[in-house]
Amino acid sequence: MAILVVGSVAFDTIQSSFGKAEKILGGSATYFSLAASYFTEVRIVAVVGDDFTREHEDVLRRRGICLKGLQRAPGKTFHWGGEYGENVNEAKTHFTDLNVFEKFQPQIPAEYLDSEFLFLANIDPVLQAQVRRELKLVRLVGGDTMNFWINGKRRELLETLKLMDLLLINDTEAKMLAGESNLLRAANKVMAMGPKALVIKHGEYGATIFFGDRMFGVGHHPFRAPALPLAEVRDPTGAGDSFGGGFMGYIASQGELNREVLKRAMFYGGVMGSFAVERFGPERLQNLTREEIEARFEIFRELTHLD
Amino acid sequence: MAILVVGSVAFDTIQSSFGKAEKILGGSATYFSLAASYFTEVRIVAVVGDDFTREHEDVLRRRGICLKGLQRAPGKTFHWGGEYGENVNEAKTHFTDLNVFEKFQPQIPAEYLDSEFLFLANIDPVLQAQVRRELKLVRLVGGDTMNFWINGKRRELLETLKLMDLLLINDTEAKMLAGESNLLRAANKVMAMGPKALVIKHGEYGATIFFGDRMFGVGHHPFRAPALPLAEVRDPTGAGDSFGGGFMGYIASQGELNREVLKRAMFYGGVMGSFAVERFGPERLQNLTREEIEARFEIFRELTHLD
Repeated sequence: MAILVVGSVAFDTIQSSFGKAEKILGGSATYFSLAASYFTEVRIVAVVGDDFTREHEDVLRRRGICLKGLQRAPGKTFHWGGEYGENVNEAKTHFTDLNVFEKFQPQIPAEYLDSEFLFLANIDPVLQAQVRRELKLVRLVGGDTMNFWINGKRRELLETLKLMDLLLINDTEAKMLAGESNLLRAANKVMAMGPKALVIKHGEYGATIFFGDRMFGVGHHPFRAPALPLAEVRDPTGAGDSFGGGFMGYIASQGELNREVLKRAMFYGGVMGSFAVERFGPERLQNLTREEIEARFEIFRELTHLD
Repeated sequence: MAILVVGSVAFDTIQSSFGKAEKILGGSATYFSLAASYFTEVRIVAVVGDDFTREHEDVLRRRGICLKGLQRAPGKTFHWGGEYGENVNEAKTHFTDLNVFEKFQPQIPAEYLDSEFLFLANIDPVLQAQVRRELKLVRLVGGDTMNFWINGKRRELLETLKLMDLLLINDTEAKMLAGESNLLRAANKVMAMGPKALVIKHGEYGATIFFGDRMFGVGHHPFRAPALPLAEVRDPTGAGDSFGGGFMGYIASQGELNREVLKRAMFYGGVMGSFAVERFGPERLQNLTREEIEARFEIFRELTHLD
């Protein structure tokens, strides 16, 4: 079933201990779409500028991603520059040129209105809520956010959280949003704000999904999926969005939504995140096969399962 | 089969957001022994001072732990004081009074010489090596160390590592020892120093075991065990040593040593660590039942296993 993602399509200039890449394709919607495209039909709503070429579009188009909702605006495409040091979990930002993204007003093409799955990638919570409200036929809404909105637009974010079924954030964001340093208590506080389940991403330690009572009833233990220990993390950019794409893409590909589907989705999220960081930018996510994905899924299983 | 542990038996004065405990029983050998005592016969080699009472001994004796190797020295028992803030993974040390521990010379009782399993808890690597060499019948040696020895007695530590089959350390220690920030590469470097398998403890994110080629042949994926998300971590002191006790105790209780035993041992390690932090000091480790341990083992399985 089709999943619509609204977020950023951007350029990144990235430096890591493995080298430098100038103005390569990036953005939350890009990583999300590419990862999700191995599981289901994907539709993008985002904005790019004059410098976004046919070749850039083709990266997405070759994966069957629908670009009807990719808006053009006069000016330059959103461009982020940053650097990863010894600690690959933390980027040092060099510049953030929002460009056309600053005035982004998501327009949903009529053909997208039947989307049953929606992912609200990390954009202004006011825009997230607008998009959510326009999509009347949506069955499941996932979303992301960040410290910038948690601190800067808290009131608006709290309204938007009421519209989300699944929230995907990292440890720091969860603790900041809840005002609580204990992970489990933070998770419970965040779920009380709206989301029926919460995925907290732990970077190289994997991710945990917490199940709110409203989704599957009381008393369900959380579920933890690993990340793959990799000898070379070339570029961690987009790992979280690729996790989101694998996670939501797998869910959208399944007929029903139950705990077991969400648990397997956690594994597929980890799998797609592990591919993403192996090369600069979204390169590795462009030419995977379903067999490679299943083979890595089995490695994730070996990594965690007793016989 | 009997496991001998050499380490510290001490007093701790601990402050956390849940309260304060003055001069309670602590030390690496204490937590290790109590945790291991649910799986196998345990023998302690350690030193205490005049202030260590019969009541303190009884805590260990009630769990069937042999104290023939608990030496008495004139003076006071090792006493550590510290505090945990918001980040429960990090203690702020208030004082470290080594007292009789400063001149600790491990004496192995004759009755202990048939021990088949040995755990060298975190003490001077020179003493660790001495104990290892005295125990001629040992089949498997596990050990721990810390930044103090990694930086201060590196040459001696490298000699001792050659005598260890299994090393249990945390992320920071592994990276420091290897001089390498990537976890997988750090693990491989540390195993090249001697240990045939390496357990890296990630605090609230669980632990990973890396298998060196010399133990089970090439190409085995690491295995990751979770930690239990707990709403109340009252006192994280001894979590790592309790992990070690559950891990080594389970191994010693099994007839053979294979990958599957080590994987299950990782779960039992996590289980005992999760019990330890629920109360101040080793209180929770004194009155467990095997049923409680197995029930929590099942929670750990649910936390990580797909159906």
